Amino acid sequence: MEDALLFNGTSMEVFKSEDPDTILVRYTDTISAFNGIKKATIAGKGEINASIAAMIAGYLSENGIYNRFIRKISSDGLLCAKTEPIDLEVTVRNFLAGSMAQRLGLKEGTRPENTIFDLCYKNAELGNPFINDHYAVALGLVSYKELDEIYSVSKKINVILRPMLESVGIQLVDLKLEFGRDRKGSIILAGEITPDTARMWDIKTSDKLDKDRYRRDMGKIYESYRTVNRRLAEKLIK
Amino acid sequence: MEDALLFNGTSMEVFKSEDPDTILVRYTDTISAFNGIKKATIAGKGEINASIAAMIAGYLSENGIYNRFIRKISSDGLLCAKTEPIDLEVTVRNFLAGSMAQRLGLKEGTRPENTIFDLCYKNAELGNPFINDHYAVALGLVSYKELDEIYSVSKKINVILRPMLESVGIQLVDLKLEFGRDRKGSIILAGEITPDTARMWDIKTSDKLDKDRYRRDMGKIYESYRTVNRRLAEKLIK
Repeated sequence: MEDALLFNGTSMEVFKSEDPDTILVRYTDTISAFNGIKKATIAGKGEINASIAAMIAGYLSENGIYNRFIRKISSDGLLCAKTEPIDLEVTVRNFLAGSMAQRLGLKEGTRPENTIFDLCYKNAELGNPFINDHYAVALGLVSYKELDEIYSVSKKINVILRPMLESVGIQLVDLKLEFGRDRKGSIILAGEITPDTARMWDIKTSDKLDKDRYRRDMGKIYESYRTVNRRLAEKLIK
Repeated sequence: MEDALLFNGTSMEVFKSEDPDTILVRYTDTISAFNGIKKATIAGKGEINASIAAMIAGYLSENGIYNRFIRKISSDGLLCAKTEPIDLEVTVRNFLAGSMAQRLGLKEGTRPENTIFDLCYKNAELGNPFINDHYAVALGLVSYKELDEIYSVSKKINVILRPMLESVGIQLVDLKLEFGRDRKGSIILAGEITPDTARMWDIKTSDKLDKDRYRRDMGKIYESYRTVNRRLAEKLIK
């Protein structure tokens, strides 16, 4: 990709494409945690994540979720629609894990009776603080009406992905989503769903297959991501 | 009050009364901040706060807000209905101040276009963490339906108190509310509204008239609370 770099993220680079309505997303081998304090390179992760992101985005498209993914164009690159970013991270939680479980004094893996949705303000300088709907509106990030749409789509995504992942032996613990606006101002799923952004546990063994292996120095990061990729490919590639 | 102590809080003591449906709340001279890390005694504060709490609760009752206050029974004591506590703090914010302004990188006194409501889980051991509706339900503290009622009442309280306080030259910056359930399980306003729990600024000078004077070592704590009490008494005591 010789196009101009638009954005250099922690696990991806975003380039201009010839068509002003699209962008090229290239997944890199970089992994980072704790708002960038911890950083490393995992050889081959970029290709694996590009594959997983493409399969999941394709599956969501087939199931009626409007999202930016157009097609995979190389081993580590995706062609996507250009969207205006919304600086929010929406996390859907089927089980409590990580810092949120700690914060509430709950054991990792606690299963609430309801599905939990939470918002963080995507602002690295402030440490991506946990907020709520009213702050998101006060900060001018979204309207209450857009939030309704965002929660409704987030819920649908969870309902679509959870059983699909279960059918390949993966428990979807939680899922971080990002949204944007298309040219008409409609809400569209942006970002990507990979083991970098979603917690995935093996259903039988409860082994972590996601970025927590890196956060907690558990090893076998590449192998775990590859397991997710392989199981999805067996299910989704016809 | 020789009745049995039920609860010894940082700024009040709660006693059993002869009637099992009521309690006696005695306001003390203790002031504390940062989840009890900072603590002091302000002579006379208990009486002032009992007076403010009684006037505001009485005003809310007159304006249709169901709350636990029955009557003032001594210089520092209130007779209240006994309620089953809900371990939540609901904060209504007309302006952003304190740790929430900091957290979002906003200047103290920023006025959002919307009214902000937020929830903290009342759990001193965990540092009363900021949560959202879904966590409150997951923790078993309330139902979504009860939260609707709690937000609706919180909004009404703000709409009732804000102009009343403005008419005595006080800007209601924010307001921490606590709720409980009555014998029938209905939501009832518990806790109290005083300069310990609400930020109040002089409208003309923007002088702080509340507990931030103590948090930030600004002095004139008693004098400021007395100013609030005097202005309310002139308005509300017929």
